[in-house]
Amino acid sequence: MERTLGCCYYPEHWDETIWSSDAQRMAQLGLTWVRIGEFAWSRIEPEPGAFDWDWLDRAIDILGQAGLKVVLGTPTATPPRWVVDKHPDMLAVDAQGQTRGFGSRRHYCFSHSGYLQESRRIVRMLAERYGQNPCVAAWQTDNEYGCHDTVISYSQAAREAFRDWLRVQFPAQEGNAGDIEALNTAWGNVFWSMEYRDFDDIDLPNLTVTEPNPAHALAFRRFSSEQVVRFNRAQVEIIREYTTAPIAHNYMGRVTDFDHFAVGADLEISSWDSYPLGFLEDRVGASEQAQRAYARQGDPDFQAFHHDLYRAVGRAGSNGAKPRLWVMEQQPGPVNWAPYNPAPLPGMVRLWTWEAFAHGAEAVLYFRWRQAPFAQEQLHAGLLRPDSENAPGADEAAQVAIELKNAKNVEIVQSNVGLIFDYAAEWSWNVQPQGQGLSYFGLVFDHYCALRRAGLSVDILPPDATGLEGYDLILAPGMMHMPDPLKEALNNSGAQILIGPRSAARDAHFSIPTPLPPGWNGLDTLVARLETLRPDLPRPLEGGGSVQNWLETLEGTAQPVLSLQDGTTVAVRAGSVTYNGAWLDEAGLDRLVADLCAQAGLEVTVMPEGLRRRDTGAERFWFNYSGQSIDCEAGTVPAAGVLRETLG
Amino acid sequence: MERTLGCCYYPEHWDETIWSSDAQRMAQLGLTWVRIGEFAWSRIEPEPGAFDWDWLDRAIDILGQAGLKVVLGTPTATPPRWVVDKHPDMLAVDAQGQTRGFGSRRHYCFSHSGYLQESRRIVRMLAERYGQNPCVAAWQTDNEYGCHDTVISYSQAAREAFRDWLRVQFPAQEGNAGDIEALNTAWGNVFWSMEYRDFDDIDLPNLTVTEPNPAHALAFRRFSSEQVVRFNRAQVEIIREYTTAPIAHNYMGRVTDFDHFAVGADLEISSWDSYPLGFLEDRVGASEQAQRAYARQGDPDFQAFHHDLYRAVGRAGSNGAKPRLWVMEQQPGPVNWAPYNPAPLPGMVRLWTWEAFAHGAEAVLYFRWRQAPFAQEQLHAGLLRPDSENAPGADEAAQVAIELKNAKNVEIVQSNVGLIFDYAAEWSWNVQPQGQGLSYFGLVFDHYCALRRAGLSVDILPPDATGLEGYDLILAPGMMHMPDPLKEALNNSGAQILIGPRSAARDAHFSIPTPLPPGWNGLDTLVARLETLRPDLPRPLEGGGSVQNWLETLEGTAQPVLSLQDGTTVAVRAGSVTYNGAWLDEAGLDRLVADLCAQAGLEVTVMPEGLRRRDTGAERFWFNYSGQSIDCEAGTVPAAGVLRETLG
Amino acid sequence: MERTLGCCYYPEHWDETIWSSDAQRMAQLGLTWVRIGEFAWSRIEPEPGAFDWDWLDRAIDILGQAGLKVVLGTPTATPPRWVVDKHPDMLAVDAQGQTRGFGSRRHYCFSHSGYLQESRRIVRMLAERYGQNPCVAAWQTDNEYGCHDTVISYSQAAREAFRDWLRVQFPAQEGNAGDIEALNTAWGNVFWSMEYRDFDDIDLPNLTVTEPNPAHALAFRRFSSEQVVRFNRAQVEIIREYTTAPIAHNYMGRVTDFDHFAVGADLEISSWDSYPLGFLEDRVGASEQAQRAYARQGDPDFQAFHHDLYRAVGRAGSNGAKPRLWVMEQQPGPVNWAPYNPAPLPGMVRLWTWEAFAHGAEAVLYFRWRQAPFAQEQLHAGLLRPDSENAPGADEAAQVAIELKNAKNVEIVQSNVGLIFDYAAEWSWNVQPQGQGLSYFGLVFDHYCALRRAGLSVDILPPDATGLEGYDLILAPGMMHMPDPLKEALNNSGAQILIGPRSAARDAHFSIPTPLPPGWNGLDTLVARLETLRPDLPRPLEGGGSVQNWLETLEGTAQPVLSLQDGTTVAVRAGSVTYNGAWLDEAGLDRLVADLCAQAGLEVTVMPEGLRRRDTGAERFWFNYSGQSIDCEAGTVPAAGVLRETLG
Ligand SMILES: [Zn+2]
Ligand SMILES: [Zn+2]
Ligand SMILES: [Zn+2]
Repeated sequence: MERTLGCCYYPEHWDETIWSSDAQRMAQLGLTWVRIGEFAWSRIEPEPGAFDWDWLDRAIDILGQAGLKVVLGTPTATPPRWVVDKHPDMLAVDAQGQTRGFGSRRHYCFSHSGYLQESRRIVRMLAERYGQNPCVAAWQTDNEYGCHDTVISYSQAAREAFRDWLRVQFPAQEGNAGDIEALNTAWGNVFWSMEYRDFDDIDLPNLTVTEPNPAHALAFRRFSSEQVVRFNRAQVEIIREYTTAPIAHNYMGRVTDFDHFAVGADLEISSWDSYPLGFLEDRVGASEQAQRAYARQGDPDFQAFHHDLYRAVGRAGSNGAKPRLWVMEQQPGPVNWAPYNPAPLPGMVRLWTWEAFAHGAEAVLYFRWRQAPFAQEQLHAGLLRPDSENAPGADEAAQVAIELKNAKNVEIVQSNVGLIFDYAAEWSWNVQPQGQGLSYFGLVFDHYCALRRAGLSVDILPPDATGLEGYDLILAPGMMHMPDPLKEALNNSGAQILIGPRSAARDAHFSIPTPLPPGWNGLDTLVARLETLRPDLPRPLEGGGSVQNWLETLEGTAQPVLSLQDGTTVAVRAGSVTYNGAWLDEAGLDRLVADLCAQAGLEVTVMPEGLRRRDTGAERFWFNYSGQSIDCEAGTVPAAGVLRETLG
Repeated sequence: MERTLGCCYYPEHWDETIWSSDAQRMAQLGLTWVRIGEFAWSRIEPEPGAFDWDWLDRAIDILGQAGLKVVLGTPTATPPRWVVDKHPDMLAVDAQGQTRGFGSRRHYCFSHSGYLQESRRIVRMLAERYGQNPCVAAWQTDNEYGCHDTVISYSQAAREAFRDWLRVQFPAQEGNAGDIEALNTAWGNVFWSMEYRDFDDIDLPNLTVTEPNPAHALAFRRFSSEQVVRFNRAQVEIIREYTTAPIAHNYMGRVTDFDHFAVGADLEISSWDSYPLGFLEDRVGASEQAQRAYARQGDPDFQAFHHDLYRAVGRAGSNGAKPRLWVMEQQPGPVNWAPYNPAPLPGMVRLWTWEAFAHGAEAVLYFRWRQAPFAQEQLHAGLLRPDSENAPGADEAAQVAIELKNAKNVEIVQSNVGLIFDYAAEWSWNVQPQGQGLSYFGLVFDHYCALRRAGLSVDILPPDATGLEGYDLILAPGMMHMPDPLKEALNNSGAQILIGPRSAARDAHFSIPTPLPPGWNGLDTLVARLETLRPDLPRPLEGGGSVQNWLETLEGTAQPVLSLQDGTTVAVRAGSVTYNGAWLDEAGLDRLVADLCAQAGLEVTVMPEGLRRRDTGAERFWFNYSGQSIDCEAGTVPAAGVLRETLG
Repeated sequence: MERTLGCCYYPEHWDETIWSSDAQRMAQLGLTWVRIGEFAWSRIEPEPGAFDWDWLDRAIDILGQAGLKVVLGTPTATPPRWVVDKHPDMLAVDAQGQTRGFGSRRHYCFSHSGYLQESRRIVRMLAERYGQNPCVAAWQTDNEYGCHDTVISYSQAAREAFRDWLRVQFPAQEGNAGDIEALNTAWGNVFWSMEYRDFDDIDLPNLTVTEPNPAHALAFRRFSSEQVVRFNRAQVEIIREYTTAPIAHNYMGRVTDFDHFAVGADLEISSWDSYPLGFLEDRVGASEQAQRAYARQGDPDFQAFHHDLYRAVGRAGSNGAKPRLWVMEQQPGPVNWAPYNPAPLPGMVRLWTWEAFAHGAEAVLYFRWRQAPFAQEQLHAGLLRPDSENAPGADEAAQVAIELKNAKNVEIVQSNVGLIFDYAAEWSWNVQPQGQGLSYFGLVFDHYCALRRAGLSVDILPPDATGLEGYDLILAPGMMHMPDPLKEALNNSGAQILIGPRSAARDAHFSIPTPLPPGWNGLDTLVARLETLRPDLPRPLEGGGSVQNWLETLEGTAQPVLSLQDGTTVAVRAGSVTYNGAWLDEAGLDRLVADLCAQAGLEVTVMPEGLRRRDTGAERFWFNYSGQSIDCEAGTVPAAGVLRETLG
């Protein structure tokens, strides 16, 4: 697979006289792709039903003439004012009951059928016109679903759609009125006389006096996720009528409010938007110390995690080809939206780009071509400054473009280690964290980081993975509901398996099963009790490391493998399955990973602080996220630098 | 008085086939009481006017057959969905003007007359049916008034009721239109042209541009409290028509938004819900250091304070019998609702139970029998696990049950020390803290803890106490409005009296009186000025300890008893009355308590950290809240353990 | 100019029988001025159209008889309940969409035309009656515009007025329908399809999904400021019909939501309300260490800054006389509204008063005469206690009154140093801080403090200053939009000029200009990139001090004058213009100021911690804000004391 670069471009932001030189400079810089169109609805259809295609025709033509391939975005993330005036109730409503207004972007509720029709209409117009355009080589639906907390809406449209969705979840014997008793039973609504007599009794789970029923809350999260899938699929189905070009959506990092695997099943390209510095400041959840140490580099594992995640998201080609991974937006300099917005260390734009390739990316597009002098993102760096001079990111991009010419292709191979990521588990923990600030994402990411500190390459796997062969070690911590087929697939995989804490702790409707969790075939252990711990009260492990946040009391005959200093068993094993009842700190997780690797016959190489590696077919990549050069077995990796090692 | 145990049970949560074995296991464990029914409205009256009594009849029968005594709760904390549909405006409204919806519990406004009628109706149905049932030995009204911040509602129903309530507070010479000029004058509404021309001009004191008139805010707090009293009394009056069994309400710890003395005056049993670990995390206000030290034990004084408080709340029997103190819900393991939810140290469930008895409790009921696998509290431990196995709490309960058989009865006697607690003072400080985070509860609790660190047993007294004879020392700090009869009763009590800071600082309508406070007969001192202090700027006392938070400048001829290192007088005394103008830190309060005890002829025994004692008629109880065993004069008290010492 | 004292008095708060003795005591204390009337609407017009003037006639007469001069306030900050009932939509709406209700003060939206009419009506009635009253020597409009966050309202009235205001900003060729395309272009609305087809499409910039267009937000801030100007001007125009007495408004410290220069252009007296202890706790933004050190004194520079600011705000007399500076409300003891409310150190009330005079104040009025025993401010100290005894502030005021008799007049002269303050820049930074917590006010105040630490006296200058002659040094940091005439005036002033960071960074509609900022004639530098920094990641300067918060990358040939330890240039100079691209810490700013002073030929005297000085015509004042006495070249300045040194 050839590796390529690109950028995001908004011809409508610039005087048409510079389009041509922009296009030529892009090509000269070594870019292949240019994404356009995604926010341009008000220019395509300035008045209801009155279209202006000329400028877009010309823009595509000019870009194509320069040898660039266009990714054409549907503009549904930014409906113009007149769309909102036509459908005033299309606006989303926040958890406080406040309507979220026009004046920025993503101002729509996924459940509103009128807006869905408008979206279908504009997408059809676009696809009809450009579906066969030779310059348009790929499509993007909408932009960053879920960004700005936009998956969940408490609107009237959502309320009605949720009721209908529940009727389908709890179908009546006949007709579609639903079986309300089944719902009451599944949710345990008897608990506080919350029993409904009809689906129309069911409100959205906000603004309750104290917390709503977690089964209710989780159902609403599942519903909200499916509304995104439905909205995206509507666009995909239309585009497919007109073209065979691959379709992407650009996911936003750390957005977990919808199931990316489900959206991705409709898309050939799984792409994401990578802003390492902004993420470190506002969503990684790193320690203050780490935020200082990596302020100009980004977290050493966060980008890799998303690359590995999105490599697993996506639609296999009809020819069985693997889904394609892209970075649709790559930070090229300071951004404008994090609490603090420093500039990347020199070298980091190149490092991030190569890291994406090492993890399987086919294309990396920088966001954006030229910094806009106006509107919300005027302090978001581009490859060019507002005065059209090269910004530092442009030089690093150019360097990568040159390096790509001479570099052999990256060959992606299955990793030895698999790690399951389940969006529904994330919602489940959100609904019931039991300890302040605890999240499934945090737990899984802690495991991912520990694997990386051990020098391992990781495949992230979907929760409905079936083909689990070929892995030596598979981790599935914290997945609160585990369907039986998955349990079976894990048991049959031949790999060492790590589950817990909280794995398989709930049935499909958020009730605690009996026998108590994890209820794992062949593993005689059950979670008799669980505690959450103050952050300042970790409990020390015998042999090093500590338990923090979460601690389960295990009963049963399985073999202890970790215990507290007071002798309490914390993790147990039977055969190839290990159940860990605790959220371990770094030292504890490193010990557990080392132990599991020993069981699995995997070699552990402890990475120096800031250094990470990634194995591909014939090469091992070394990435130095620190500000100092680091010596490793393959040589010296410069600060903010990359080393490619040919594998034996 | 015989000491008994019990539990809270929800037969409607379980398959009827296990009711009988549940009842037998309760009895075998040594339980006497079982509270049921409190959240079961949707099962009793699934459709408006359509009742299903059969299951409840059977449940009561089965429990009674097993020898258990039933406490029957009215289900008014959880009106079913159809009640809300019938009375959409019955929902409370929060301070931001947002309606608090259906989907959890306590979703009603105390001022809504329609809901009051529904409550009367369902209570009458229940009382009519079970008033003479021999298995029903006590009743409970509603559940935890005020929990989830539900006393105060800014609804239209509250607005109208408040206006009518004010008309009664400021009555016209004739008719019931009220005297608006009297209100304007009492509140000082001239201040910012806030004068009203009619009671219908008066809004609720939320959503004002800056703070509302504190007189307005305090009146609304008083009104809101009285609405709870009215709501509860309506139930009590109906139940009394059908039974002579005692009636309880289960107060929630640290809820002070209504006057428990006033509600309690209608109830024979004063019961409360004791969750020591949850409380320490979310409402005690302890230091971080203390939160770490007692994370698995709870605050060493918080439960005792509530036992002593609720021993004073309640209705004297017609035969002059003292009111009865119960713990209606006792934490038996980890709960689900605090920021962090650790498990109690082994021994603590027993300790908490014995501590309740030592402070006069007649019954302690564990919440709940079996952990529910569904709905909001699925991670709240019960005596049984969801799989019906004993949880650790069950074993400690069983141990207490056995110990009770052989132990002599606890004999409650009047303490040497009295401490006045006034709910209206708590509202007054809330309305006007003058320093961030300052509260009356915090001030009184600081005094209570100091008394306990000195080894003293304490009686908490209501603000309208008249019989104050027999005490050697009475403390009444921070009671902002002190009616003349109380001042007189204190002066005539024969005890040493401690008042201040802020005692008697306001008249009945929240104005500063002239002469300036405290205006105390026989004590020539006045508060010339007051300051609040940053937490990081305590002012050191001469001789040890510091002033924190609050400091008054005292003028007059009374004898100084405490002063700052710069010579400023902080506390003064004349005869048996001491006025303390400062909020003292622990060391300062310990010194003041020692001094007062010396004046009162009381012996002080300084308690080691974590150890507390409580004197009863013939016994002294020692409770060790720490994680290490402690040697005291009565012997060694094991960690999380109890020691009973026979007195004299 | 004679210096005078006064107080704020509310005769309507007190029994008429004490008015006379109050007046005599004021006069005896040495007071000249008494401000009355500002909150008395409900007493002047208790019913719509029914006026009661008698009490006010008598109050003015009694005060005048005692020799006092009355400042008469218009009562429009406190419309009575009946005004609100007449105009329910006159209430302001907060950013969350919540209407801000009646029950305190400032409950009106500046854009509501009905309320504007009511204000005009009551002001005309007052002016008609008292315009020629010989006892009324000055007028005050309303009270503390903007206090309690009241400039910005998201009401329907504001929405409509904003649209009309925008039509005027973007006028059509003909008619007043406006040119919507001009607005779309100026704001860059194409960015996210935010283009409008009509001015009626434009909403207020709240409740958007993510941030609104900063151009939109800034326009709304400008509009909101102009609504205040319009509201104030309406009152002024009416008062002037009836009197030639000077008119004041009392600005509140650190309120920057409207342009005080623009309001002040209509008023002869520029007065402000000075609460040094409250300000330090709730708005200075000082370090925790400084908040501890100055808790009872106030920030050593904050009052001086406001004196210097308000000396520049105001309307020149028709005879060319300078605008007059007053302190309309001076803190005399503890206040009631800050997080913590300590008492001033003895001496501070006198110090604050003398400091006002040293900075050019003509009158200082204490707020208030007597502490009110009722309503919102009952814990706000007055000169008298509620029991009419002198509070400590009264004695210090009396001391100043005596000192004034014997002291020579203060002669205000132009300072050597000018500092430009631009309200629009403050709004611009608010709209786009780019780093958490960064503000223009903070940046300017940091510069002001550095100048004061160097012993310099400062004139604050408006952003449209034209006569900049006579200064040796002028600072204009952070002024995001700098009109060309100002740039020219600075270049032609003959002074050393300091600009940056962020100076001249935006055009009039908040776009980044090309060539890139600062685009300064004669200075070859441009801001190629900017970063914001975590507070815990300052970057050390070569030679001492650090860059914090903000760092620009400079390009060009101008001469470097400051650089980072890694060699990066941070500030540059060409001729007399210095551009500083960084937010410097104290040590860095001290170095920069010292360097600029050396360039300007100004002598720097490093002030000891807590000591400040201020030069006037023939005297130098030394103020000791610390709690210890300090020796300086002029002698020993006692703690919380003042020293007057005769100059040369
Ligand atoms: Zn993006
Ligand atoms: Zn409870
Ligand atoms: Zn004021």
